[in-house]
Amino acid sequence: MSDSRHLLTIADLGRSDVERILETARALDGVTDENRAARLPTLAGRLVITLFYESSTRTSSSFELAARRLSAETMSIRSAGSSVDKGESLKDTVLTLAAYEPAVIVVRHPQVGAAQLVAAHCRATVVNAGDGSHQHPTQALLDLYTMQTALGRLEGLHVAIVGDTLHSRVARSLLQALALVGARVTLVGPPALVPRGLDGPCCERSTDISAIESADVVYVLRMQRERMLAGANYVPSLREYTARWGVTPERLRPGQKVMHPGPMNRGIELDSRVADSADSLVVEQVRSGLVVRMAVLHDLLGQGVPACEIAGVA
Amino acid sequence: MSDSRHLLTIADLGRSDVERILETARALDGVTDENRAARLPTLAGRLVITLFYESSTRTSSSFELAARRLSAETMSIRSAGSSVDKGESLKDTVLTLAAYEPAVIVVRHPQVGAAQLVAAHCRATVVNAGDGSHQHPTQALLDLYTMQTALGRLEGLHVAIVGDTLHSRVARSLLQALALVGARVTLVGPPALVPRGLDGPCCERSTDISAIESADVVYVLRMQRERMLAGANYVPSLREYTARWGVTPERLRPGQKVMHPGPMNRGIELDSRVADSADSLVVEQVRSGLVVRMAVLHDLLGQGVPACEIAGVA
Amino acid sequence: MSDSRHLLTIADLGRSDVERILETARALDGVTDENRAARLPTLAGRLVITLFYESSTRTSSSFELAARRLSAETMSIRSAGSSVDKGESLKDTVLTLAAYEPAVIVVRHPQVGAAQLVAAHCRATVVNAGDGSHQHPTQALLDLYTMQTALGRLEGLHVAIVGDTLHSRVARSLLQALALVGARVTLVGPPALVPRGLDGPCCERSTDISAIESADVVYVLRMQRERMLAGANYVPSLREYTARWGVTPERLRPGQKVMHPGPMNRGIELDSRVADSADSLVVEQVRSGLVVRMAVLHDLLGQGVPACEIAGVA
Repeated sequence: MSDSRHLLTIADLGRSDVERILETARALDGVTDENRAARLPTLAGRLVITLFYESSTRTSSSFELAARRLSAETMSIRSAGSSVDKGESLKDTVLTLAAYEPAVIVVRHPQVGAAQLVAAHCRATVVNAGDGSHQHPTQALLDLYTMQTALGRLEGLHVAIVGDTLHSRVARSLLQALALVGARVTLVGPPALVPRGLDGPCCERSTDISAIESADVVYVLRMQRERMLAGANYVPSLREYTARWGVTPERLRPGQKVMHPGPMNRGIELDSRVADSADSLVVEQVRSGLVVRMAVLHDLLGQGVPACEIAGVA
Repeated sequence: MSDSRHLLTIADLGRSDVERILETARALDGVTDENRAARLPTLAGRLVITLFYESSTRTSSSFELAARRLSAETMSIRSAGSSVDKGESLKDTVLTLAAYEPAVIVVRHPQVGAAQLVAAHCRATVVNAGDGSHQHPTQALLDLYTMQTALGRLEGLHVAIVGDTLHSRVARSLLQALALVGARVTLVGPPALVPRGLDGPCCERSTDISAIESADVVYVLRMQRERMLAGANYVPSLREYTARWGVTPERLRPGQKVMHPGPMNRGIELDSRVADSADSLVVEQVRSGLVVRMAVLHDLLGQGVPACEIAGVA
Repeated sequence: MSDSRHLLTIADLGRSDVERILETARALDGVTDENRAARLPTLAGRLVITLFYESSTRTSSSFELAARRLSAETMSIRSAGSSVDKGESLKDTVLTLAAYEPAVIVVRHPQVGAAQLVAAHCRATVVNAGDGSHQHPTQALLDLYTMQTALGRLEGLHVAIVGDTLHSRVARSLLQALALVGARVTLVGPPALVPRGLDGPCCERSTDISAIESADVVYVLRMQRERMLAGANYVPSLREYTARWGVTPERLRPGQKVMHPGPMNRGIELDSRVADSADSLVVEQVRSGLVVRMAVLHDLLGQGVPACEIAGVA
């Protein structure tokens, strides 16, 4: 671990860290299932700030709810309707927010390295909720948790990641996380969007969608239509993308699990019949997000109280 | 009742349902009057999501406050600054939010049938806070409550609804609610805006503003200026609308109560002297909104604990 | 005091009021330092509404946090995504919000006199969080508190205010507050931006930046670039402003304290080396904002319970 106070990138974590967080999430899942009202005291009397410079439903709500279920006070700063509008730099915004002595700042920002910059300018624990096309570590952890819940294991799993790996912070974090826990990965997509540098002992690469056939999990990335329209010629056309790499029932074996970080473009990267099928884990991913983010906050700030005792406390 | 788990339209309710909700509201009004700090335990440990795709001060704030006063946890999703921006469908947003296992989703959306769609895709209790020009049932209930408070009864009341009934979800819900409780209605306004189909045993129709004369309550609808400007020729001009159907002191008898769902266009559909007069119930309507929405949530989720006992609990 | 129920302008306060508020803030600072989780019961069961028609990070967050730390329920209304969009007047918005019987409305609005108008239309205590270029009284109070903390006294302090005093509500409130506590002020800036009418026994005026030399505190105002671009010829150019009135290390003595209400334009009115130096009180100002706003709310609504007892209660 580079700095165990923060969660800036999956590279901050070792295998045992990942396993401990997943175990904590599992314990919390048990607690909240029995008693929805249970609030853990981990962050009682402490402030969690969510600082989002990009729009989001899932991630910001999930972090706020997770913080409140650990008894934290929350403050939500969005780029619209705030000093951010007046052109204040991220650094000055952080210096300002630091004056409130938050325990945690959760930050999403379009620039690579933004979370690191936040960590450098305050004493709070920083959780990266997405920095440009760089990292989104809690998404990777909730994806591991979802896979573990659905398939019973992570070691030796074969995961196919389909789509625009090149620009995806989700893919970047997930690749590192899957490597840590001993899963095998195949990247599938248009040549220009599946970077060659990521090949390695546990990572293969294919431009042919039939490569998903042997995977236990097919992880479909969101097609960033904005980027396509901007004219960068990564893909001939959206229609051709769907024809060649769209994930349809015909291209899947029964029982293959399908995941997507959302929001989905139905009919583009993912066929609606797949999204709504029994093998889709999309809703389960959102559900996992809440409990995994609780676990991450507890792990960073719980001062070593282990998962089993949390369950006892509640 | 079609499905008593939800409140999607006034058509979901029978007369006894309406009466029970109004009684519950009356009991809650007593409790909160004595002790502003009173929080009822109805929704303790449960999550209420407000999902608003149209701007609103009154309705969203009112629901959030009502939910918190029933001890709920709240989450507020607006169309700006959320995944909704990324073009996610309402259905997928609901599937996502459902993963948080909310007890209630309160939804406002520009499309007719949106609340029904939400109800079809999650297990939460759904309250329709406005779907296009279709329904806005809690507005109708708070209007009944306001009339009952001011005039002591609903049965046999004569209510004139003035303005654009054709496009108004408020009018549509209110008409049904007034029919249920045995009130008599006269619709008044320009011929193109007062639909003929709504005539019936308890509903008359007039294009002459003098028809409000015998009404106990004059209910003034908001003139949707956006719609006028869009060029649909429902009304010759805004000035002519005001001249022929604007509600002024001269057109009212002393003691006739005046209501408006807000926000008002002062000087257009409603004269400022009327809005600020002692006979205006506009502020009382907002106040009723809070207690009626508490009553609706309690009625849907209180598992049959009656109003008198709520008062005892607090 | 004109009306001690509200805080609309520094002119509402006498010297003893200011001193009492600063003492209360000092007592609260002690409490929250020992026990971050401490919540005072002052506003338990009462509603505080923040009504912001201009964007803000610092001020709105600071008020909401202050209110919650006094155990209040909070409701936040922003001009975007609310009925304000539908062109409702401030007066009608206030009448609407008044129906929720808030204990306090905190309001920011671009028009001079907006807070006064709010006070005239509801029974709530109103705190002005900025009305056009008129007043921003809690900013002045937190600035006094910051100076007192850093320098041990207010009486006899020499404060230089640098920049666009003419259009600044911050400067207008601060000038009055400094006069009340017996500080001496020098206004420095371009002739067109430093109004002559404000000269007086405790206020001097200079167009030469070297006039800051003898000041204990250099208070740098934000350069409103929007205003400059709008073409009003108050200043030849932004570059010339920086050259002649920018606050740089070279223009300061060691130990001179520097303040700025934020957000800063680094490199324009304030050199980055100054902003980040040990003599900068910028972060301390934000920190003071929280405790001073708690003190203001306690002072207005605490029914005379003195500061020392608050500390005892917590």
